[in-house]
Amino acid sequence: MTSKIFTKNPIKGTKFTIAISSAKGGVGKSTFAMNFALALKSIDSNVGILDADIYGPSLPKMMSINEKPKNDDGKNLVPISQYGIQCMSIGFLVKEETPIIWRGPMVTSAIKTFTQKVLWNDLDFLIVDMPPGTGDTQLTFAQEIKVDGVIIISTPQEIALLDVKRGIRMFDELKVPIIGLVDNMSFFQSEDGKNYNIFGEGGVEKIASDYKKNFLGKIPIDIDLRVASDAGKPLFEKNPNHKISKIFREMAKKIKESFL
Amino acid sequence: MTSKIFTKNPIKGTKFTIAISSAKGGVGKSTFAMNFALALKSIDSNVGILDADIYGPSLPKMMSINEKPKNDDGKNLVPISQYGIQCMSIGFLVKEETPIIWRGPMVTSAIKTFTQKVLWNDLDFLIVDMPPGTGDTQLTFAQEIKVDGVIIISTPQEIALLDVKRGIRMFDELKVPIIGLVDNMSFFQSEDGKNYNIFGEGGVEKIASDYKKNFLGKIPIDIDLRVASDAGKPLFEKNPNHKISKIFREMAKKIKESFL
Repeated sequence: MTSKIFTKNPIKGTKFTIAISSAKGGVGKSTFAMNFALALKSIDSNVGILDADIYGPSLPKMMSINEKPKNDDGKNLVPISQYGIQCMSIGFLVKEETPIIWRGPMVTSAIKTFTQKVLWNDLDFLIVDMPPGTGDTQLTFAQEIKVDGVIIISTPQEIALLDVKRGIRMFDELKVPIIGLVDNMSFFQSEDGKNYNIFGEGGVEKIASDYKKNFLGKIPIDIDLRVASDAGKPLFEKNPNHKISKIFREMAKKIKESFL
Repeated sequence: MTSKIFTKNPIKGTKFTIAISSAKGGVGKSTFAMNFALALKSIDSNVGILDADIYGPSLPKMMSINEKPKNDDGKNLVPISQYGIQCMSIGFLVKEETPIIWRGPMVTSAIKTFTQKVLWNDLDFLIVDMPPGTGDTQLTFAQEIKVDGVIIISTPQEIALLDVKRGIRMFDELKVPIIGLVDNMSFFQSEDGKNYNIFGEGGVEKIASDYKKNFLGKIPIDIDLRVASDAGKPLFEKNPNHKISKIFREMAKKIKESFL
């Protein structure tokens, strides 16, 4: 399967589209996406976030958004601005606890709406928070949308790394450029300063090297980071000088430079 | 949507089918499924595991299985026995690192094959390791298969709990009985004995109470548990007397008693 037979359209209103992906769920992808978006904004970029996780949207909670997007012309959705970021999520359109029990074609149709009918306003970067897996959403993006790059997030345990390998092969096969890999929840530091490799060590960097992809860095487990996401104000917004925020800012700088 | 218009068939060769689910990925569902299956086996049950995660199969690695299932009659697949458990996974049929880049209808078709064409042999319990989400796989099971109960696993952070609520509502709506909820990766104990609530505290038990579901217990973060899964021999098999194995045995006893 090659992507050449499809027409790939850029998303209107943005210069670059960057997907945040991990074939496996629960590795901190959404937390990464929100903080990375805020880090890009802090270095003078116009940024939007599209939450493409139809089954498990987390943007509304992580960004404290409780309103519905405007739809004045009856055709297009207006993103909701929060902390200076333009945001869109299926979570804006359903009650928080309502499950979206949909088969694949419905998911594809929702993703098409979100990529074609949202009035993004003059963005430098649209960050797309992808769902786990290698299914309908990934295929729709890869085949129909001009994705300028993907950042693959993983925790370092072996069983997650298997999914990373599958993810790399999928994006390579679908001709979506991989910006690089991030090792998330790398280690946990207890109060006495000891480091625990709860999820293992070094695996993501090794895979980056094996597959000749960039390794973008490590982000340790940090309770502040989780607490901030749970409280609806990402750590980067709450405390841009936190040691974890600094890691995000450095990554954002490097990646911005590679595009602009 | 109700499930009454569908004919629900039991899976041939097993008395009871128990699904291990979490709307969110990465919460330790597969590790739970493998150890729980081994715990049921240790109390004299015949047990099988069906890995229903088409996009991210982890059974082959966690159970050290590197062979293809037999298909002597050209119609049915013979499960592969390992550690006394009958196992089936899409991972047996493709190379470990090959991504399964499929749209929903293909996933549905694979799930139908796995529920209708596997020669399970005289099982008391078939444990189904479900993928994350509320999509094709969940719908196919809920609408077409007699699922006797579902165990919902979550880590306790707020953002995961949102997905738990969606999962409970989905199974309630689809009339699949919920056996109970498990709080996984509850806390981490460092070597000096201090407990860290890395992912928060108490949330799963509270949701169980709010939704009037059973709370089945907590499983702490344990490096031994992760290392054993990564090494292909689940902790319960490697060390049935480990404190974590004892938690699994107690849960298995309670759940077995409720069925037999």
